Amino acid sequence: MSGKENNMKAEIIAVGTEMLLGEITDTNSPYLARQLAQLGIDIYYQETVGDNPARITALLDQASRRSDLVVLMGGLGPTADDVTKETVAAFLHVPLVTDPVAQEKLTATAARLQHALTPNNLIQAQLPQGAIPLANRTGLAVGSWNTVNGTVYVTLPGPPQECEPMISEQLIPRLAQATHQAIASTMLRFYGLTESVIAAKLAPVINAQTNPTIAIYYQFPDIAVRITAQAADQAAAEALIAPVAEKIKDLLGDAFYGTGEHGSIAQVVGQALIQRHTTITAAESLTAGAFQAALGTVPGISAVFPGGYVTYAPEQKTAMIGVPAALIQQYGVVSTQTAQAMAEGARQHVGTDYALGFTGVAGPDTLEGQPAGTVFIGLASPTGTTVREFHLLGSRNEVRARAVAWGFKMLQDVIGR
Amino acid sequence: MSGKENNMKAEIIAVGTEMLLGEITDTNSPYLARQLAQLGIDIYYQETVGDNPARITALLDQASRRSDLVVLMGGLGPTADDVTKETVAAFLHVPLVTDPVAQEKLTATAARLQHALTPNNLIQAQLPQGAIPLANRTGLAVGSWNTVNGTVYVTLPGPPQECEPMISEQLIPRLAQATHQAIASTMLRFYGLTESVIAAKLAPVINAQTNPTIAIYYQFPDIAVRITAQAADQAAAEALIAPVAEKIKDLLGDAFYGTGEHGSIAQVVGQALIQRHTTITAAESLTAGAFQAALGTVPGISAVFPGGYVTYAPEQKTAMIGVPAALIQQYGVVSTQTAQAMAEGARQHVGTDYALGFTGVAGPDTLEGQPAGTVFIGLASPTGTTVREFHLLGSRNEVRARAVAWGFKMLQDVIGR
Repeated sequence: MSGKENNMKAEIIAVGTEMLLGEITDTNSPYLARQLAQLGIDIYYQETVGDNPARITALLDQASRRSDLVVLMGGLGPTADDVTKETVAAFLHVPLVTDPVAQEKLTATAARLQHALTPNNLIQAQLPQGAIPLANRTGLAVGSWNTVNGTVYVTLPGPPQECEPMISEQLIPRLAQATHQAIASTMLRFYGLTESVIAAKLAPVINAQTNPTIAIYYQFPDIAVRITAQAADQAAAEALIAPVAEKIKDLLGDAFYGTGEHGSIAQVVGQALIQRHTTITAAESLTAGAFQAALGTVPGISAVFPGGYVTYAPEQKTAMIGVPAALIQQYGVVSTQTAQAMAEGARQHVGTDYALGFTGVAGPDTLEGQPAGTVFIGLASPTGTTVREFHLLGSRNEVRARAVAWGFKMLQDVIGR
Repeated sequence: MSGKENNMKAEIIAVGTEMLLGEITDTNSPYLARQLAQLGIDIYYQETVGDNPARITALLDQASRRSDLVVLMGGLGPTADDVTKETVAAFLHVPLVTDPVAQEKLTATAARLQHALTPNNLIQAQLPQGAIPLANRTGLAVGSWNTVNGTVYVTLPGPPQECEPMISEQLIPRLAQATHQAIASTMLRFYGLTESVIAAKLAPVINAQTNPTIAIYYQFPDIAVRITAQAADQAAAEALIAPVAEKIKDLLGDAFYGTGEHGSIAQVVGQALIQRHTTITAAESLTAGAFQAALGTVPGISAVFPGGYVTYAPEQKTAMIGVPAALIQQYGVVSTQTAQAMAEGARQHVGTDYALGFTGVAGPDTLEGQPAGTVFIGLASPTGTTVREFHLLGSRNEVRARAVAWGFKMLQDVIGR
């Protein structure tokens, strides 16, 4: 069954005065929208409303007449402002009842924190009578799923760290079941090609099929490609994805670096270094420590990363890692030769398997007559040194971020995925 | 006149199917909401709708009956999907007409880019007859302001880089005029106090007055405090702000580091270093280069930052900057003594005025029996070295980010603002 055929019309109601004041940006709605789109469920309306029972009720009344799925997000907490669940219960003419599982979690949490459990706290375990509870793995307020007169009413907590897991782990599987579908999805991550190049290369495969679907996302500095398949069961859906993923990797070649919802080439390459017991250092000029700081985000990286240098000024390239002053004089700081000498000097001084040397022009001003975005990255290895020249786009910080990602990409190309 | 008295009810309609698919997150609505809140204009409803004339018309019809200000954002571009302005014009029973200023900009831009001007492009210069054009400083699609039967209808472009300037430069001044107000606003930025401490310290001054208003924003790792005043003219509004800003700075003491919409203690302190010709270096362990990478975001920093060290492994603290191995052995890597020796070693090796040494436990695991979040920062100066011990909250990367910000704060405390 194709998702387009199920024709379930969804409507999202985000509840919270803080959104109407602009104090927080609603990221739950786009997150849910993407997940519903993968199920082929169309959203026709999204509303944001304050913590006001009368206005929430008016929206519920409108939604009940035009939508098959009404998802309310926010207002499930313990404070007087949190009116969503009592408003939904009143609209459906049912009382609130307590979910014993959620209550047990509240009691256990209060005991662990040595807090007294107030009646307000216990409200978080309540849901409209007749609703199926949606467990909150990362918080205390239980969600709910209620089918009344053919319309499904769902309540979800507002904090994204609670809302997103409840969507992906509770709501979407239940919706997939309700629409007799199983969904499988994977996100392939690429670095080093532009969005337009990727779009052009993938156009034939995107246009050739509707299941799996293929969507391209620009998530600076990555490009991510999501493949989503629908089938009668999970194994069948996953089986549809594998050959398409291989075809896409073939088409885009070396730009592929890993899979995952939240990309970071630093994580992927850093973990590969740890697994292979391959040691790394760097000497950084325009990136000023950003490559090493990215390495530092990887838990356990200390096993393979002893440290390195920020050789920002030309004299420090000489003083810290022995780049000959005459070489800098002859070729300039922004040159193949300096990048090579930086990588080799860092590798020799720290004694690692590999070393990267970053030099270039972050901008906004030119340097040595070279325009902003000109970057040389050297990679010193046990078998010699390679240097690549780049002309990177964007602001000062974008150029630096792209240079860091290219450093990881060059490293991945030699150590393997 | 206080903003609360104008009682203008606003409604925001975000137009774009890509939002209903979750492909983009609507940041224009919270931006506009914040600006309207400063004018004392309350938003009761926000909707998101696809590029569909019938559904946009239904929302316009509803909004016209309950709101005084209806702002539509998105759908002003040149493609067939962009239906907002023709839908508004049809709803108001007026034709579209061409704004000569916007047309001239289109013609000039096409000439500069050597593109032919298609009829589609020219649509971007159109607006409903009777509307006041809102100039698009950063793009080509003109906005509009139309008062019909006492309700104001506004159209704004969807891309945030066009929408935000049109809001702040065109819409808000016009609304301030319409509501007979002038608005002044400033954002004070703080680092090093928790939100709850700031809230408690500011509660008396927040509760004591309604003009200026004071709002606290948590913008990791900063806390920002916005002061907004309304008055009959701009000078009077600004005069209301100054004494309140001074009172707040007094109450929060050393935590204040600067003013501005988009905070970065690195920018503020980096620019102060450049202005004072004060040189800086660092030796970083848990932060792994993140402090120096933040320095590198400041244009012109090379004048005062020659470079520094990432001394991640204990042996590199000894090899690179001469921290005695016996000292590390005796006191541990995570200690006052090691932080002091790192700062002093870096300062001596690079020859700068100041140097910072960062050591600690980013987590998730403990180190030397010290819990994640334990951080020592040494600051070596011409007059000696100070070390501060911190117990920072959050994930691995939050601990590292907080440590970097504390490094800048310690530096600011000695070099001055």
